[in-house]
Amino acid sequence: MTDIVTYMEALGRAAREAAPAMARAPTGVKNKALSVAAEGMRTHAALIGAENERDVAAAQAAGLDAALVDRLTLTPERIEHMAQGLLAIAALPDPVGEISGLAMQPSGIQVGRMRVPLGVIGIIYESRPNVTADAAGLCLKSGNAVILRGGSEALHSNAIIGRYLREGLAAAGLPPGALGLVETTDRAAVTHLLHMQGEVDLVIPRGGKGLVELVAREARMPVLKHLHGVCHVYIDDDADAAKALAVAVNAKTQRYGTCNTMETLLIAERRADELLAPLVCAYRAHGVELRGCPKTRDRVADMVSATEEDWETEYLAPILAIRVVADVDEAIAHIGRYGSHHTDAIVTENWTHAQRFLREVDSSSVMVNASTRFADGFEYGLGAEIGISTDKLHARGPVGLEGLTSQKFVVWGDGHIRR
Amino acid sequence: MTDIVTYMEALGRAAREAAPAMARAPTGVKNKALSVAAEGMRTHAALIGAENERDVAAAQAAGLDAALVDRLTLTPERIEHMAQGLLAIAALPDPVGEISGLAMQPSGIQVGRMRVPLGVIGIIYESRPNVTADAAGLCLKSGNAVILRGGSEALHSNAIIGRYLREGLAAAGLPPGALGLVETTDRAAVTHLLHMQGEVDLVIPRGGKGLVELVAREARMPVLKHLHGVCHVYIDDDADAAKALAVAVNAKTQRYGTCNTMETLLIAERRADELLAPLVCAYRAHGVELRGCPKTRDRVADMVSATEEDWETEYLAPILAIRVVADVDEAIAHIGRYGSHHTDAIVTENWTHAQRFLREVDSSSVMVNASTRFADGFEYGLGAEIGISTDKLHARGPVGLEGLTSQKFVVWGDGHIRR
Repeated sequence: MTDIVTYMEALGRAAREAAPAMARAPTGVKNKALSVAAEGMRTHAALIGAENERDVAAAQAAGLDAALVDRLTLTPERIEHMAQGLLAIAALPDPVGEISGLAMQPSGIQVGRMRVPLGVIGIIYESRPNVTADAAGLCLKSGNAVILRGGSEALHSNAIIGRYLREGLAAAGLPPGALGLVETTDRAAVTHLLHMQGEVDLVIPRGGKGLVELVAREARMPVLKHLHGVCHVYIDDDADAAKALAVAVNAKTQRYGTCNTMETLLIAERRADELLAPLVCAYRAHGVELRGCPKTRDRVADMVSATEEDWETEYLAPILAIRVVADVDEAIAHIGRYGSHHTDAIVTENWTHAQRFLREVDSSSVMVNASTRFADGFEYGLGAEIGISTDKLHARGPVGLEGLTSQKFVVWGDGHIRR
Repeated sequence: MTDIVTYMEALGRAAREAAPAMARAPTGVKNKALSVAAEGMRTHAALIGAENERDVAAAQAAGLDAALVDRLTLTPERIEHMAQGLLAIAALPDPVGEISGLAMQPSGIQVGRMRVPLGVIGIIYESRPNVTADAAGLCLKSGNAVILRGGSEALHSNAIIGRYLREGLAAAGLPPGALGLVETTDRAAVTHLLHMQGEVDLVIPRGGKGLVELVAREARMPVLKHLHGVCHVYIDDDADAAKALAVAVNAKTQRYGTCNTMETLLIAERRADELLAPLVCAYRAHGVELRGCPKTRDRVADMVSATEEDWETEYLAPILAIRVVADVDEAIAHIGRYGSHHTDAIVTENWTHAQRFLREVDSSSVMVNASTRFADGFEYGLGAEIGISTDKLHARGPVGLEGLTSQKFVVWGDGHIRR
């Protein structure tokens, strides 16, 4: 890699030139590219495994920790799962070309909005090589070109997966330049990618907070990001006890490391005596460490004190902060002050409290009587997910194919002129 | 103004604190604020005129040009028009709270999207003081707080208009801090506003190319912008001659200074001999200067040569570049290369050419058999317009109330947990 700038500019130019062909590609052609790629991965699963083994061996030799090595490893099952993922994306409806809101205007023209691809999408991600196939599949199906920059420890794995994706594009008669893969470990490539505002229309970081913050700070193009998820469940005065227990336990314990896991439980003071005991019992049975506000600790023995920092922390671990609040107002205020605008839920039978929570909590997902763990593209019926956006502009919440597109106005007349 | 940073931070904090009250304000309350403001402006029209006269006198004394002084001047008719504009915004449907796409998912939860305000919107604009009322009205009706920074030459006019807007908010029981007005001519205020990414969710520059480019470069928050409009009409092989003449003449001559005015006419070679003569005759009757490609000049006497620069120029003046192209492919390629992704139209009776143009021209508005001059929030039925966005993300094309909002997912269950 003698000249990283020349290399990145060539990738950017190829993607930009490929974008119009991707944008006008019929659905069947895009689906063919994805299914040929999936077949290539299945046929050459042993070869993918061998290339992946090079990355895994290097990671082990470098003493990387076991969790990272596990995320890096492509077993035969994971390769098959990757191929099935591409076929599942091929089976999704194509968002491109849909026209909505077409209506006649007083002047006689008809005006509607057509859904169109964004152009070129950059994806920057970390160690898991299956993201290469997933992210590329979503971008290509939505009619975009894509430039992928995966983790340097997955270089060989990403390269071989990229090869079959490009073979799929070629087999469908689409320009292979629509899939750009940054095949260098030089970190200058990331900086350069983030400065290619003429070639890249949107960049999506997928990874830890450090990566997302780096991308948000450096990128000269729009960024689709989620920084973190400090999610709440609020058990209201008028909560049904059984629903409260089910939702509050599930939201914490169904998985610990996900961004839609509850990190703080809020409970109305009127229900604290009744509900804290069974909740604490359930959490402790799951091995969850509890940290409480003074009113919680008054009611529960042997609980450490929650600090100001706890209310702002995404633990991603079996730890839960608990706070007793006066009512729905105090719950909404707590979430507004400490939350991360990701996903928050109320458990209540009270119509007005539910409506107020839905309206006033400013998060990408607001829920009534459902576990925060449902915040997910598949659970929401989007069919797939490239990430969960906590931004307000463009796409918000779980982002599927539609979130990788934009809209343009279409206008038709019959020789209409403006007077 | 001893400390501009303290001053701007206070404005930002007041707007941020007012945003939740604006977001939950019922439609009738927001409408009352707008109608009380409109009544205040009507009742005190003489006072507004007197404050405006101070700005006009200062502008004349400073030797500002006549066009700028005219834009700055508030006649009684313009004040009445401003009040009527606020009442018209009050009469528009409220976009906030609309829930779309609510559907049952396999897990049993219901998922939909609720339209919500963005939060705090910053508007930076130039000399016309009526923008103060228009922009504030749109932002407040869509449930946002707003910080306005108008031209320094309109300082007194903007201050008195802002007073009645705040009186309207107070009369409706809404926080007056929802309308922040930067009442200083210190240019450091603009820079500081553009760096308040914690307080301002979106900034909208309204003014010339220099202002928009400054804002795009300096802002640390998303920008809703249109840089310029190099709009095209393409007269296809299969155009109806009467529609072609009507649309191509209207798109250029109905108004010269607007961003949706055609700047380059493309004409299919097969129709050039027939249609160039009557088109040139019509343009010359309107006093439009014509600049042609070699094939155009072969057919028309006394026409100057269009240079490469002409194809990229937004004249905003009675000047038109004309190019003869081989066919719809060459027209689409020309627009892709030289256009500004604003508004482009095809005149054709051919179904396939129309569909290809609609699909492949990547502009905020694409039109068939209609004048580019229709690209406008009122003509599109949006009821109002804060600008025309040539960005692809968030809002694209004419932006009305809906474009000043975002969406969040709403989820309701009955104690549903994830398994």
